[in-house]
Amino acid sequence: MRGNFFGKMLSVTTFGESHGPAMGAIVDGVPSKISFSLDLLQKELDRRKPGGPGASGRVEKDQVEILSGIWQGQTLGTPIAAIVRNESQNSQSYEPFKDVFRPGHADRTTMMKYGIRDYRGGGRSSGRETIGRVIGGYFAGLILPDLKITAGPLQVGPWKKGEAKEEDLIQLLQQNQKMGESLPAKILVEINQAPQGLGEPVFDKLKADLAKAMLSIGGCVSFSYGLGEDFMAHKGSEVAQHISSFGGMEGGISNGDSINFQLIFKPPTTIGDQAKTGNHDPCLYPRVIPVVEAMAKLVLADHYLRQRAYVL
Amino acid sequence: MRGNFFGKMLSVTTFGESHGPAMGAIVDGVPSKISFSLDLLQKELDRRKPGGPGASGRVEKDQVEILSGIWQGQTLGTPIAAIVRNESQNSQSYEPFKDVFRPGHADRTTMMKYGIRDYRGGGRSSGRETIGRVIGGYFAGLILPDLKITAGPLQVGPWKKGEAKEEDLIQLLQQNQKMGESLPAKILVEINQAPQGLGEPVFDKLKADLAKAMLSIGGCVSFSYGLGEDFMAHKGSEVAQHISSFGGMEGGISNGDSINFQLIFKPPTTIGDQAKTGNHDPCLYPRVIPVVEAMAKLVLADHYLRQRAYVL
Amino acid sequence: MRGNFFGKMLSVTTFGESHGPAMGAIVDGVPSKISFSLDLLQKELDRRKPGGPGASGRVEKDQVEILSGIWQGQTLGTPIAAIVRNESQNSQSYEPFKDVFRPGHADRTTMMKYGIRDYRGGGRSSGRETIGRVIGGYFAGLILPDLKITAGPLQVGPWKKGEAKEEDLIQLLQQNQKMGESLPAKILVEINQAPQGLGEPVFDKLKADLAKAMLSIGGCVSFSYGLGEDFMAHKGSEVAQHISSFGGMEGGISNGDSINFQLIFKPPTTIGDQAKTGNHDPCLYPRVIPVVEAMAKLVLADHYLRQRAYVL
Amino acid sequence: MRGNFFGKMLSVTTFGESHGPAMGAIVDGVPSKISFSLDLLQKELDRRKPGGPGASGRVEKDQVEILSGIWQGQTLGTPIAAIVRNESQNSQSYEPFKDVFRPGHADRTTMMKYGIRDYRGGGRSSGRETIGRVIGGYFAGLILPDLKITAGPLQVGPWKKGEAKEEDLIQLLQQNQKMGESLPAKILVEINQAPQGLGEPVFDKLKADLAKAMLSIGGCVSFSYGLGEDFMAHKGSEVAQHISSFGGMEGGISNGDSINFQLIFKPPTTIGDQAKTGNHDPCLYPRVIPVVEAMAKLVLADHYLRQRAYVL
Repeated sequence: MRGNFFGKMLSVTTFGESHGPAMGAIVDGVPSKISFSLDLLQKELDRRKPGGPGASGRVEKDQVEILSGIWQGQTLGTPIAAIVRNESQNSQSYEPFKDVFRPGHADRTTMMKYGIRDYRGGGRSSGRETIGRVIGGYFAGLILPDLKITAGPLQVGPWKKGEAKEEDLIQLLQQNQKMGESLPAKILVEINQAPQGLGEPVFDKLKADLAKAMLSIGGCVSFSYGLGEDFMAHKGSEVAQHISSFGGMEGGISNGDSINFQLIFKPPTTIGDQAKTGNHDPCLYPRVIPVVEAMAKLVLADHYLRQRAYVL
Repeated sequence: MRGNFFGKMLSVTTFGESHGPAMGAIVDGVPSKISFSLDLLQKELDRRKPGGPGASGRVEKDQVEILSGIWQGQTLGTPIAAIVRNESQNSQSYEPFKDVFRPGHADRTTMMKYGIRDYRGGGRSSGRETIGRVIGGYFAGLILPDLKITAGPLQVGPWKKGEAKEEDLIQLLQQNQKMGESLPAKILVEINQAPQGLGEPVFDKLKADLAKAMLSIGGCVSFSYGLGEDFMAHKGSEVAQHISSFGGMEGGISNGDSINFQLIFKPPTTIGDQAKTGNHDPCLYPRVIPVVEAMAKLVLADHYLRQRAYVL
Repeated sequence: MRGNFFGKMLSVTTFGESHGPAMGAIVDGVPSKISFSLDLLQKELDRRKPGGPGASGRVEKDQVEILSGIWQGQTLGTPIAAIVRNESQNSQSYEPFKDVFRPGHADRTTMMKYGIRDYRGGGRSSGRETIGRVIGGYFAGLILPDLKITAGPLQVGPWKKGEAKEEDLIQLLQQNQKMGESLPAKILVEINQAPQGLGEPVFDKLKADLAKAMLSIGGCVSFSYGLGEDFMAHKGSEVAQHISSFGGMEGGISNGDSINFQLIFKPPTTIGDQAKTGNHDPCLYPRVIPVVEAMAKLVLADHYLRQRAYVL
Repeated sequence: MRGNFFGKMLSVTTFGESHGPAMGAIVDGVPSKISFSLDLLQKELDRRKPGGPGASGRVEKDQVEILSGIWQGQTLGTPIAAIVRNESQNSQSYEPFKDVFRPGHADRTTMMKYGIRDYRGGGRSSGRETIGRVIGGYFAGLILPDLKITAGPLQVGPWKKGEAKEEDLIQLLQQNQKMGESLPAKILVEINQAPQGLGEPVFDKLKADLAKAMLSIGGCVSFSYGLGEDFMAHKGSEVAQHISSFGGMEGGISNGDSINFQLIFKPPTTIGDQAKTGNHDPCLYPRVIPVVEAMAKLVLADHYLRQRAYVL
């Protein structure tokens, strides 16, 4: 019962260390006879690649290969295995990091837990692990094709949505990359067209499984839904008047309204010279966006299949 | 795969509707030969009972009965069943609520999901469901006897810790109860003496399972750990200097430091005349405190047993 | 991850030691709005009670009480808790058995595993544990109301079906009870009206889950399906001609034909004076019949719900 | 909750269709810092390859590649992904089989269940699926290095151990291969040096999980342990005298003695001209032997880790 498995009826199992042979995922529970497009899966993966504004230097091709579960462009109902090879790395250049434990990373705790770590990189705690999540999210999206998920920044360090322009944000990220500095981000996620009645009281409430999904992403430090932090400014009589206060979930079950929640990602703690030269981002935004969307899709599609089973 | 089951190696399954015959829990995975005290279990349950300042009117005896798993004051290693009878209720008095769907409650979504609901009360979404969680938390505490968990209010409506006295908080709650008004609460949870190395990357990170546990509690709308919301005010260079920024978890694994996180509970949305006369609290604080502690203990004891299995 | 939980979408968790306060079960995953009859549930439980020919002396009332999940004669979709109180036992009479480890029983291995055992009786390995299974089976039957399961003896010691009369079997059991001797039994189970397409390759094949369900019953030592042992007498060309050879399952998936399998139950190893005076049966037939039927129903209803989820 | 996942603390997830790009497995729950040998893993896989007496014509190289979880010859404690590429097949030659449903195979039931099948071969029900199981078994063996498992034939069609020579068996298999005929097999499995105390009452008894593991193998139609079928010839007074009657398990928990059980595999139902020319075996023995051993190791290692967690 290691923790590399997510979901009940729709599950994704991810594997791979950042500097091992490959990253990948097994997606199980996708119904049969759904049309599949390798191009669209590749496009999802390309969205999480570095290369955008203020992005890290390491560029991987990240070309996905399907090993099972698909035939003649359709899902077979069998487990779908998909892998992405890691590009060859000069392993010698990582020797200096053998005994360097970066604060806020898994370096030190990985040693505490396993007594061994692949110090060439982040291993499983590398951002590359999210490749498997994005693969899972693509297939989850096939189960709920009408679902609309959008995730975007509310705040990045000093930048705030509505108060500053998008160009300012790009510039801000580039500046910080140059300086070896990093910034936190607050993200708003909105989900539309989600079926009502999803969420399984009392422990697998939709809000609980969304919170787990989001907090399982590296760097995510906060989840709140509906009014979130703003609930602190309101009395019961005020929030009761506005059904929208509850973020599309009542009693942990989706009510058919727009579902929304906010996330905070801490500033990456790889800073200074290492951040300037290495494969490091000055902010988890924007690269985390497709990962957040993928995890949200996985939660909703899983709960959708769970609920279907019980409606006789 | 309904959601009434929590945990892997240590699990709690809760059952019971607020106006049915009984509430209860099956706690499975408690090692054998651990001393058990019915008195101490009862005391934990008494902590979550109404009757404190600004508390709801309904007072239940909530006397716990053990049905299995204990013999001669010791755990047998078999499933522990414990129940608390619900006091007899006048079911007629609930007829008017048959078609009343309170906003922010599970009333409407329960009908969406199941097509039926026990409208005499909250059913499974009632606060009484937490009886099973507190039972589970008691046994989790036996597995990690050195664990110290404290949870307390940082803010309750206009009241803020450090700026106002505790007496003011009591008075504030009583006032709101009288007015039929309700308040939100922000809670700080601190866990000391937690073993290091707990948490299972990549999906069952300790932060992810704590977030799920907390968001599974009715009314909880936000989870954040370490600096939480304050991360938004800091650059990477600032947080990297203070290991305490990370709330006792790095890479989703406990690092041996004090674990801490913050929760927000929305104001109860049962307000007005119904709130004045019924069994309703003006704030989820203080009654949610033992529930929060119980869920934290369940997560930590479960992860402790999981990790033990792998250390050959 | 103790083993008191069975099933995925429809699950039963059983609890209770034979001489503790109560036996019971939590049945989770029963869809909502299904009509429930306490009388019919009680009748199922009465079928597994002692009192038949060659039956043990201990007679329990075994009256079932529903604690949750049912309201106004219907399932709520919430966990159903049901308990049966154990009658008060003279605990002193069991002291002599404290250090007696009966061969073929769990007495010795329970000590090996847990370091403690409730030596007043079989604890969890008592036949009374099957009360929880029969409760689960009743609810499974509500999900698949058309299912027809019949289980009956093919052979009991020297008695063979077709070669001897039913009255002879009753007499044989009574004789053995008097002598403190016991007999093995071979049981044939036939399931008609099972939906086709049930079973989840590659590990949760229907035959695999039926085998597990049956071998989880105390005393069951053998499971075979279709031609079973008779497969050894046939070549491939012979069995391929008769689809019925395969017992209603091909590739581990139900094919819509009658499902059938055979079980062997070892002779109870409580023999001699202890068997004459105590609550002991000379053969696990006939008391195991309702348990076998219950487990079969649980497997089929669980797989039925699992399969439903995936048919978009 | 498709059925491609086996085990709790040590789990194997298999994937791959016989004529898709690759077969493989994710093995999760292997403790860290265990020495790994690619050569020994390859040797295990070579044992299940065709090429022995009376073997099928199709010969695959079946070279295994590790994608994750291993570094510098040691396990990392992270999920281990291993794959074996399928050799390129002429897909046109399979067109005639599109609508041919072989009796006793998954052909027809796969269509019933999924509405689609990769008719080029057995898909997931092909013998090649067992590659993933053998990979899992290799790693299970690393967790319990002292375990000794031997599996061998008791009977193959007319051939019986002790009554005929091993050479006769080889000749028998070759004859049947030539004739396009097939034979059933009875296999005896013996496990020595298994830890005592393994097995989790009441549903995950060791005998129950072994039965499930074995019946999950294609073609396995019967599981019995201890005296098995011979229990039918004995009274309780006889079996109680010989602890060995119980096959190393009492109450579903290992007692430290040699564990043994018997399996029956039906004769393959691909017969006639198709069996002479295709990649088909005249008997599941001997190729199923390493698969049986692998599944036994997976069950025992999983239960070993489960039990370890609870011994405080």
